[in-house]
Amino acid sequence: MASTPLAAHISQQFDKELEDIRSKVLAMGGLVESHLAQVLDALGHGNAAIAESVAHADYKVNAFEVQIDEECTEILARRNAVARDLRLVLAVTKIITDLERVGDETEKIARMVLNLIENENPKSYYIGVLAMGHHVRRMLHDALDAFARMDSDAALTIAKEDPEVDREQDAAMRALITYMMEDPRSISRVLGVVLAVRAMERIGDHARNICEDVIYLVRGKDIRHISLEDAERALRAAE
Amino acid sequence: MASTPLAAHISQQFDKELEDIRSKVLAMGGLVESHLAQVLDALGHGNAAIAESVAHADYKVNAFEVQIDEECTEILARRNAVARDLRLVLAVTKIITDLERVGDETEKIARMVLNLIENENPKSYYIGVLAMGHHVRRMLHDALDAFARMDSDAALTIAKEDPEVDREQDAAMRALITYMMEDPRSISRVLGVVLAVRAMERIGDHARNICEDVIYLVRGKDIRHISLEDAERALRAAE
Repeated sequence: MASTPLAAHISQQFDKELEDIRSKVLAMGGLVESHLAQVLDALGHGNAAIAESVAHADYKVNAFEVQIDEECTEILARRNAVARDLRLVLAVTKIITDLERVGDETEKIARMVLNLIENENPKSYYIGVLAMGHHVRRMLHDALDAFARMDSDAALTIAKEDPEVDREQDAAMRALITYMMEDPRSISRVLGVVLAVRAMERIGDHARNICEDVIYLVRGKDIRHISLEDAERALRAAE
Repeated sequence: MASTPLAAHISQQFDKELEDIRSKVLAMGGLVESHLAQVLDALGHGNAAIAESVAHADYKVNAFEVQIDEECTEILARRNAVARDLRLVLAVTKIITDLERVGDETEKIARMVLNLIENENPKSYYIGVLAMGHHVRRMLHDALDAFARMDSDAALTIAKEDPEVDREQDAAMRALITYMMEDPRSISRVLGVVLAVRAMERIGDHARNICEDVIYLVRGKDIRHISLEDAERALRAAE
């Protein structure tokens, strides 16, 4: 097909569209990532103004999702995508859903941070929470980077970090429980931090989902719902 | 196209495939719904054996997701879908993601219920939690029913119940906080109930997402990220 000038023209046009979608996903990811970084910064420095602005910025992330989703549907509707392009479009529709959910979790964390700052809580008890937040932020950044570079090896390495986040979550929860037991009047406020920890754990899950989509995209293997060890073995065997 | 016997044959074959996907989504939904019903039953009657079995049954839900997703990709790859069929395939890929997440939340609730039963907690403090659980179970059931009947009006009515679930969540949380403050030694156990409440709230969100997909499917309108009042106005105007 690419031998006729018209087909080559169509193909170039199509490549441009796919490239456009890809860069919009990265822009959406960059926005989500920057919201998360700002919210952690607000928590670390007790800056209510930043938390407030993040709590009201999620509509921008949502607008990205609707727009990219529409473009994906249009491309599928035109039906001139080859199998690999189709895989990109389907992976993109999944990735933007995960990014949108990270945006929702970040908005929730922002509201909890606001609440924490207003009540002037001692910082000592959420040191572990902050560290966990920075860990999932890095995971999200690296997952988007793996998508940008179409690097399935990097994606697998990042996906394997998820159990570590779970351990950080357990440690943070234990610390928060101790804190509440020592000062029962703090329970209501600390519960906000418990839910923030949970939201961070979800962000780690979403980063892992994005990594699995990158692997599917690059290698054509669906590794959801199998252990990462089995996934690694399957990918090695396919090489 | 349907005028030639071959085209009619292809079209019939295609209808059969779409119908097959649709009934698989309903079977997956039925399975998720039954897991949730069982887990609430286990909580209501303190039945550890049921909670235990649900905690280990999520792999069946995951297998459904992978299988339906593959069939959707195959249909899109063959590129003979008309716009409305395409909308069904895309809506299905989103709906099964939501169902899979409901399965994950249900598994988490099952583990928390097990933990609660083992520690022989008084039932009084999770009456509100149980009521909220039954509410989101009904929402999920009705959302799947709206999908089965392609009923966008019913879907909009169900989606509007979500704020009520949020109010039930707030009430349940307040009760749990009071309970913890009165008996700080209970904090660690009650925290499990707090997270179960959160998981139920998510199930309500997923039911709402499914309703929005049904509306998109039937009416071709993307109502995510706009208020339900605006969505209703848009749908009325389109009639």
